[in-house]
Amino acid sequence: MPKNRIPDVVVRRLAQYLRLLEDQGFLMGHYISSQELAELAGVTPAQVRKDLAMFGEFGKQGVGYPVRDLKSELRAILKADRPTNVAILGIGELGTALARYLTREQPEKASRPFSLVALFDVDPAKVGQHVQGVRIDHLDDFSRRVSEKGIQIAVLAVPASVAQSVLDGAVKSGVRLFLNFAPVKLKAPDGVKVNSSDLSLELQQLAFYL
Amino acid sequence: MPKNRIPDVVVRRLAQYLRLLEDQGFLMGHYISSQELAELAGVTPAQVRKDLAMFGEFGKQGVGYPVRDLKSELRAILKADRPTNVAILGIGELGTALARYLTREQPEKASRPFSLVALFDVDPAKVGQHVQGVRIDHLDDFSRRVSEKGIQIAVLAVPASVAQSVLDGAVKSGVRLFLNFAPVKLKAPDGVKVNSSDLSLELQQLAFYL
Repeated sequence: MPKNRIPDVVVRRLAQYLRLLEDQGFLMGHYISSQELAELAGVTPAQVRKDLAMFGEFGKQGVGYPVRDLKSELRAILKADRPTNVAILGIGELGTALARYLTREQPEKASRPFSLVALFDVDPAKVGQHVQGVRIDHLDDFSRRVSEKGIQIAVLAVPASVAQSVLDGAVKSGVRLFLNFAPVKLKAPDGVKVNSSDLSLELQQLAFYL
Repeated sequence: MPKNRIPDVVVRRLAQYLRLLEDQGFLMGHYISSQELAELAGVTPAQVRKDLAMFGEFGKQGVGYPVRDLKSELRAILKADRPTNVAILGIGELGTALARYLTREQPEKASRPFSLVALFDVDPAKVGQHVQGVRIDHLDDFSRRVSEKGIQIAVLAVPASVAQSVLDGAVKSGVRLFLNFAPVKLKAPDGVKVNSSDLSLELQQLAFYL
């Protein structure tokens, strides 16, 4: 199935399946059934089988999925088996916090190979400063840095009022993948993917348990 | 079905269904089929029907769900129809950014009634300062403020190294619902819910599209 036909929520579940398998610490040679994985993930076994079947045949009838193969297949599908270069645009409080998060020490078994390669802002007082050893460049230099640094994902931590224009500029510079923290819905052309981190949605889920 | 039996991912999907219905701007009197809602949400129609059936009978065979009723039922289920009091613990860069986010101006139709009622830190230089009009209290005063301010959800924006002990203290003060931003897995007793905001998982989903 072509990549742009896979619904986002399926990709989300695949990332969750991988995380669950990594967190469980299965032994070598262990198998997991779609029923077991479904219970861990809180979906139906049919949903698990449908999600995984999109990418080919993993499991065996009556035996389940070999955990080790399933993990490495999921890592390959999700590109978690290679480093990904990330830039942050907007180095205010949130941008700085995100920079620290991305450069924190990782647990040994973690398979989240994200490299923070560039930071951008428009404030002359910030340009030239360093956060976690990474220099803050002026946003005007973004286009040049995309090829120099091989930026693959841009994190938008800019004010909502300028988020759309910053996104538009970054798209023109050739970046296709964005994680948006500005509390505003952004429009992007076909072939460009903008995921939004949504604090309200997280809180809404918690409010259910009140 | 008792509340603690509903899997988290179902709650997550319910919050997404509500968001999708709100974003679509359906007309009065419109009906939506489980097939249509499933397509919007990227799940199977059977999953939609199963999720909604947990909470009683909404839809009619062959007609679908009346959008207006479905929205108000989802709002009631998710407690989005009443205000929820939120506190932030740890007013560093991230905590400050989250405080600004929670007090931002909301679009008119937004049904996310979260009130930021208290901020906490242990830094004497921060205690007594205000962020977005809310005073930063010392963490030692947390227990007292829980009842005074009616804190319902605590957002943890403290360093990973102290997150567990801050959580433990807040649980003793009677808070049951937490959104954790510290990059560490936290343990909580039964009856306490700790959701984690996970930047790595968000980036992992984007990396799929590389």
